[in-house]
Amino acid sequence: MILCDIGNTSVDLFRDGQRIKLSLDEFDPGSIDVDIYYVSVNAFFNERIQNHPNWHDLRELIDWDKYYPTMGIDRIMVCEAVETGVIVDAGSAITVDVMGGGIYQGGFIALGLRTAQEAYGRLSPALNMSFNFEVDLAKMAKNTPDALTVGFLAPLIFKIESLGKPIYVTGGDAVLLSRFFSEAVVDEDLIFKGMIKLIEKGVKC
Amino acid sequence: MILCDIGNTSVDLFRDGQRIKLSLDEFDPGSIDVDIYYVSVNAFFNERIQNHPNWHDLRELIDWDKYYPTMGIDRIMVCEAVETGVIVDAGSAITVDVMGGGIYQGGFIALGLRTAQEAYGRLSPALNMSFNFEVDLAKMAKNTPDALTVGFLAPLIFKIESLGKPIYVTGGDAVLLSRFFSEAVVDEDLIFKGMIKLIEKGVKC
Repeated sequence: MILCDIGNTSVDLFRDGQRIKLSLDEFDPGSIDVDIYYVSVNAFFNERIQNHPNWHDLRELIDWDKYYPTMGIDRIMVCEAVETGVIVDAGSAITVDVMGGGIYQGGFIALGLRTAQEAYGRLSPALNMSFNFEVDLAKMAKNTPDALTVGFLAPLIFKIESLGKPIYVTGGDAVLLSRFFSEAVVDEDLIFKGMIKLIEKGVKC
Repeated sequence: MILCDIGNTSVDLFRDGQRIKLSLDEFDPGSIDVDIYYVSVNAFFNERIQNHPNWHDLRELIDWDKYYPTMGIDRIMVCEAVETGVIVDAGSAITVDVMGGGIYQGGFIALGLRTAQEAYGRLSPALNMSFNFEVDLAKMAKNTPDALTVGFLAPLIFKIESLGKPIYVTGGDAVLLSRFFSEAVVDEDLIFKGMIKLIEKGVKC
């Protein structure tokens, strides 16, 4: 069984615990002739694979009553991976979702680290600088890079920790972000774990 | 005595508790012939008033050891207005500064409401929507506008309230933001109150 996460520009394949990331442009869905389960945020790609019966859209296995209609499919997948906890997916946006006993409790969307940094830079040349990831978020800042980093990260981290559940961090900035939590599990394969759980449930039903 | 806050595009004049906002383009510094005390973030304007001896730059009265060199002059002024408290200046950025017994404790800079909204919109058409200012920040969200509003505001408001000091809110979005605090003083003239205090201290010395 192969799992596949289709983004807007890349394809992330998962087989036997191994991941391969490919550019979407260079990827031919016909090159895979075994069963493959996928999630996709890419409408153009979805059309391309209409004629490949071995490609199975996991969207069809989701219990949509648990989530909400416009919720990103990748958010749902990471939620499916966790029974109880806060799932933080740190990419171009940082999605934060809460699961309790397998029930979706809701969540929120913050800007991603780079997105936030760019937004500060756009605001004023004086704020166009990199975050200081060595900063102590417990302290108020007394210089500009620290003021931006604390301004963006301290509220977010504090809010996530206040939710009082085990924290799971995934996504491209998982390692960077995780260092600010007093305790968190970094799991870069969370989306695939959610996909596997969903397939197992679907097969059981 | 007239007070004046010079921005990049506008001039804010304050006299006997009355405010007048003018476009910088249409404003002639020579039109004022009494003593005027100002703060300015506008280097071009600063050059224009070099030859007007009745214009007094409040930058010269600031005790810079209390603050930090790149700190915005408008942040310093609102801090000067408050002996003990958290000062939230909600404009294109939201600056948050803590004063304790007249001593600056540090602060941080968050994105402004519109700036954050624009940054979400730039990220994805699916996130290009207005915040829902009616949302309950204590709840996790289950739709996209709420997820963005909670994602941006809940961490910020929660962090500011956790600072455990009286909250003063000023700036263009003061009224909008203040409704999310359980208790806060909205004071749109805070910058001018800080300027008056600074002038009084300067005269006393």
